[in-house]
Amino acid sequence: MNDHIYKKVEITGSSTESSDDAIRNAIKKASESIKHINWFEVVETRGHIEDGEISHWQVSLKIGFRLE
Amino acid sequence: MNDHIYKKVEITGSSTESSDDAIRNAIKKASESIKHINWFEVVETRGHIEDGEISHWQVSLKIGFRLE
Amino acid sequence: MNDHIYKKVEITGSSTESSDDAIRNAIKKASESIKHINWFEVVETRGHIEDGEISHWQVSLKIGFRLE
Amino acid sequence: MNDHIYKKVEITGSSTESSDDAIRNAIKKASESIKHINWFEVVETRGHIEDGEISHWQVSLKIGFRLE
Amino acid sequence: MNDHIYKKVEITGSSTESSDDAIRNAIKKASESIKHINWFEVVETRGHIEDGEISHWQVSLKIGFRLE
Amino acid sequence: MNDHIYKKVEITGSSTESSDDAIRNAIKKASESIKHINWFEVVETRGHIEDGEISHWQVSLKIGFRLE
Amino acid sequence: MNDHIYKKVEITGSSTESSDDAIRNAIKKASESIKHINWFEVVETRGHIEDGEISHWQVSLKIGFRLE
Amino acid sequence: MNDHIYKKVEITGSSTESSDDAIRNAIKKASESIKHINWFEVVETRGHIEDGEISHWQVSLKIGFRLE
Amino acid sequence: MNDHIYKKVEITGSSTESSDDAIRNAIKKASESIKHINWFEVVETRGHIEDGEISHWQVSLKIGFRLE
Amino acid sequence: MNDHIYKKVEITGSSTESSDDAIRNAIKKASESIKHINWFEVVETRGHIEDGEISHWQVSLKIGFRLE
Amino acid sequence: MNDHIYKKVEITGSSTESSDDAIRNAIKKASESIKHINWFEVVETRGHIEDGEISHWQVSLKIGFRLE
Amino acid sequence: MNDHIYKKVEITGSSTESSDDAIRNAIKKASESIKHINWFEVVETRGHIEDGEISHWQVSLKIGFRLE
Repeated sequence: MNDHIYKKVEITGSSTESSDDAIRNAIKKASESIKHINWFEVVETRGHIEDGEISHWQVSLKIGFRLE
Repeated sequence: MNDHIYKKVEITGSSTESSDDAIRNAIKKASESIKHINWFEVVETRGHIEDGEISHWQVSLKIGFRLE
Repeated sequence: MNDHIYKKVEITGSSTESSDDAIRNAIKKASESIKHINWFEVVETRGHIEDGEISHWQVSLKIGFRLE
Repeated sequence: MNDHIYKKVEITGSSTESSDDAIRNAIKKASESIKHINWFEVVETRGHIEDGEISHWQVSLKIGFRLE
Repeated sequence: MNDHIYKKVEITGSSTESSDDAIRNAIKKASESIKHINWFEVVETRGHIEDGEISHWQVSLKIGFRLE
Repeated sequence: MNDHIYKKVEITGSSTESSDDAIRNAIKKASESIKHINWFEVVETRGHIEDGEISHWQVSLKIGFRLE
Repeated sequence: MNDHIYKKVEITGSSTESSDDAIRNAIKKASESIKHINWFEVVETRGHIEDGEISHWQVSLKIGFRLE
Repeated sequence: MNDHIYKKVEITGSSTESSDDAIRNAIKKASESIKHINWFEVVETRGHIEDGEISHWQVSLKIGFRLE
Repeated sequence: MNDHIYKKVEITGSSTESSDDAIRNAIKKASESIKHINWFEVVETRGHIEDGEISHWQVSLKIGFRLE
Repeated sequence: MNDHIYKKVEITGSSTESSDDAIRNAIKKASESIKHINWFEVVETRGHIEDGEISHWQVSLKIGFRLE
Repeated sequence: MNDHIYKKVEITGSSTESSDDAIRNAIKKASESIKHINWFEVVETRGHIEDGEISHWQVSLKIGFRLE
Repeated sequence: MNDHIYKKVEITGSSTESSDDAIRNAIKKASESIKHINWFEVVETRGHIEDGEISHWQVSLKIGFRLE
């Protein structure tokens, strides 16, 4: 049987809406250029604040994809 | 006065909807067999991706409960 | 050009609704007394459980603000 | 010769007296239901404060025991 | 579709032969009493030494299994 | 129901007697100027040594208190 | 004298045989498309289990290579 | 003999010149409002980049000072 | 408004002069092939020693850049 | 003015009495052969258990001493 | 009963064969000059790569030995 | 071919001038008594402050050297 090899890259997504949305945005963008994305792992959650409100949620994640 | 003792176990919940839902699902399942659950601590957030979309959010958490 | 100096303080917000809401509540409260809040970093997500349901989400975060 | 297998569980003991006592209480309670406890490792020390005094020391520890 | 919930437990296997064998021994022992074991994660590798030789490899790992 | 917000500050207490005393001293001092202190978490335990004896135990802890 | 610059990428190799083999497989695959690979650092060792046996060892590693 | 109590606060200094200067700037600014600063511990070094050049070094540090 | 997505890559720069120079060299090299580099975070500082002198400072950093 | 250089070594002390005593025993033993010991930092607290009681407290600490 | 004191030193072994062999080589070498070595703990696994093959496995470990 | 074994020791250098100088001072001092020093890794950067100025930079590093 074959032994798959995976690569992980770290990306940071942002969203004005929610932390989950920042993750979804990052994955949507990454999947435009990367095939076979398999999983993600959240590395860090942070955000920018303007006038006492969160203007951007920013979530760093690692995404893993199979090398062909 | 009495000194309570707690135990922590690590569980991983999953959800097709959101990271918070994965946590709620894990706690709901755990409370079927464990009494006196008191608190949880998130350990890791990750998920599976299919065709560029998150198919499952997976959150690992520790839950603490009082030993009788 | 001038070199800004920032201070970080750690706060814990809570919410009965969601983890994101606990963050928003913490920032709203902090911005009542702190000016120039610039960013936040999530440190820990946890919560209280009552009768198998999450009664309070509790998120600890560091907020950074510019010193005048 | 035989190869032993151990299991670790995480418990939190509390005491009104001292941090060491919180550890002893946790181990005493655990040994009521677990046989062959061999060692412990302190994971976290914290406590509750009331009126400027420590009302409870709380120490989380992992205890390791031999599986039969 | 259904949302699986997993539990993780930490065990320590030992072997006189190799680090990989300590892992295999731990999993073999755990699978005697736990069904649906799905994955493992190595937490720590250590061992005992006698007369300048490794007498036991000891590997701590978390194993994850599906709750029914 | 209301959602409390907490702040954490890091302090270092010292004692010539014991590690627990260094914690008690830090909390006693902090409670002179901070109201509603709720809990503490030990961050680091260290100390000074003179002539082969511990001259000061020094324990760093975070204390959490409710913001009014 | 010249100052080399290196880049690190994170990959996950798998093997049905052993943890060392998962590392070798990852490096063999990576060296098909990356030149000047110089070193690796193990980040995480885990694996899949089927019927109480390890079906795949999975090792995540960082590999460093010189940029031309 | 008396037992001193210290407080630590986390600040981030910046500089267009060097990482050490970012630390010096942070301490100079902090000492305008805090007396008895005794030591610092570097927490994180990062910076902003514009057009391939470092425009600002940013160093986060904890500073410790004696409470009176 | 639009939500930017960033990618982070880890590089190691070296210099015979200083730790700051190793960072500058890494960024200069990376900016030859990567556009829109925005920030860096130091991950590790180390170096080679020959005859009791530092022959090379080596600093690993993550650099973040905006994906177009 | 002169610039002191320090060395740190890691030792593990044990005691049948308490965690603080394990630290004191380690320092007393180390000071038999090392001069100018200046400070210690606790690295890990653990212990052996026999028949549900702590038979030995074991504390690992780093001790720092000035090189002459 | 007597309270043993242990010292830990960190060594790095290498091997052209396997990660386990790098550990064995480190211990064999250390035991030439150190008596009463009791245990080891793996700290880091890495290696050198030449022409897409692992030329050396390098494993850093702490070894603990009883002080007489 | 032969398999080298290395030892790491942790030292803390200080300097009134800069963080890099504290590292250089530590290595210069260590090389008086240790042969074959090969590399260093920075563990912690801190310092003493007097009257709002850094009086001493203190950098802890591990140095690795080949055992003969």
